[in-house]
Amino acid sequence: MPYIDVDKNLPGIRSLMAFRPETAKPLSDLAEVLLRDETGLSRAERELIGMYVSYLNDCFYCHHSHGELAVCYLNGNREVVDAVRKDYRQADISEKLKALLQIAGKVQQDGKSVQPGDIENAKKYQATDRDIHDTVLIAAAFCLFNRYVDGLASIAPQDMSSYPLRARQVAENGYGPHIYSKAQPQASAEEIHS
Amino acid sequence: MPYIDVDKNLPGIRSLMAFRPETAKPLSDLAEVLLRDETGLSRAERELIGMYVSYLNDCFYCHHSHGELAVCYLNGNREVVDAVRKDYRQADISEKLKALLQIAGKVQQDGKSVQPGDIENAKKYQATDRDIHDTVLIAAAFCLFNRYVDGLASIAPQDMSSYPLRARQVAENGYGPHIYSKAQPQASAEEIHS
Repeated sequence: MPYIDVDKNLPGIRSLMAFRPETAKPLSDLAEVLLRDETGLSRAERELIGMYVSYLNDCFYCHHSHGELAVCYLNGNREVVDAVRKDYRQADISEKLKALLQIAGKVQQDGKSVQPGDIENAKKYQATDRDIHDTVLIAAAFCLFNRYVDGLASIAPQDMSSYPLRARQVAENGYGPHIYSKAQPQASAEEIHS
Repeated sequence: MPYIDVDKNLPGIRSLMAFRPETAKPLSDLAEVLLRDETGLSRAERELIGMYVSYLNDCFYCHHSHGELAVCYLNGNREVVDAVRKDYRQADISEKLKALLQIAGKVQQDGKSVQPGDIENAKKYQATDRDIHDTVLIAAAFCLFNRYVDGLASIAPQDMSSYPLRARQVAENGYGPHIYSKAQPQASAEEIHS
């Protein structure tokens, strides 16, 4: 039961964004530029970092929403997403992404937990300054999103079939105002699967 | 020493924003709408919440930057700002703001730490849904800003006289692109005090 009077037909962060569109705009703009840019890190890698931090923060809604987005961008390869969640060191991903996930995990604890050795390790696997910047900012941004969603007790749908549907919408249309606008019709399972 | 190649003449988050203007735009837009809006909570109250969370996160740069902004908006009343930092329960602030700082402190730990009793307590002192929303989002946003600043080891000036100068610039001009644009001349102590 959310702590404030939001539209209960909208899940998670979408209900909070609809409650306060003035702050929704920069938050969705940040997600758009940080998670959909494809320079350096791919969309799948960006979503995996967000999913991993949300998992560490035990944020059910964000963790499953962004896990499903990673599945989308990986053409349905759910095994890799599950492996990152379970133990990214053993997952079938690049050494560079493992090094960046190590940094993201430190940022989740506290900014100062990131040590020079973590950065050197990432650079050893050809991570650029921009890759490192984006990793730290994605991890920090999910520390915001997770706290926003859970701190206001927004509703995390328990029907797991709803997560792939919404992920597909975001993969196709991005993090624009459609994600929190009430005017925008929600895609039905039929539309998504057609 | 910053972990990535940023302009070392710019302090803290400003150096990171100049490195990546695409993400700087939504981040500064978020700060502008969340910290400078005066509906419900005043600018001083918003900056006090940000300062308090940054203090809990032990982020030297953000803690002092936003503490000085609160001092600005409180017409130089540094005692209140110091008291909030030391123990807000004993500070000369409203019971409503104390209740909101209690929520902010919970958000700093983890979103799920916020309990229904914390919300009821804030509502008892006439906090509106919007005040509660903004408090949770300000606290969550500083969990991003603090991790961004410290996770990339950006430079926190040790010359404490620089903080009031920059705070005065933001108080007068807001969180626009001038805070990270290299083209914008930095105000000198002389200009600020004239």
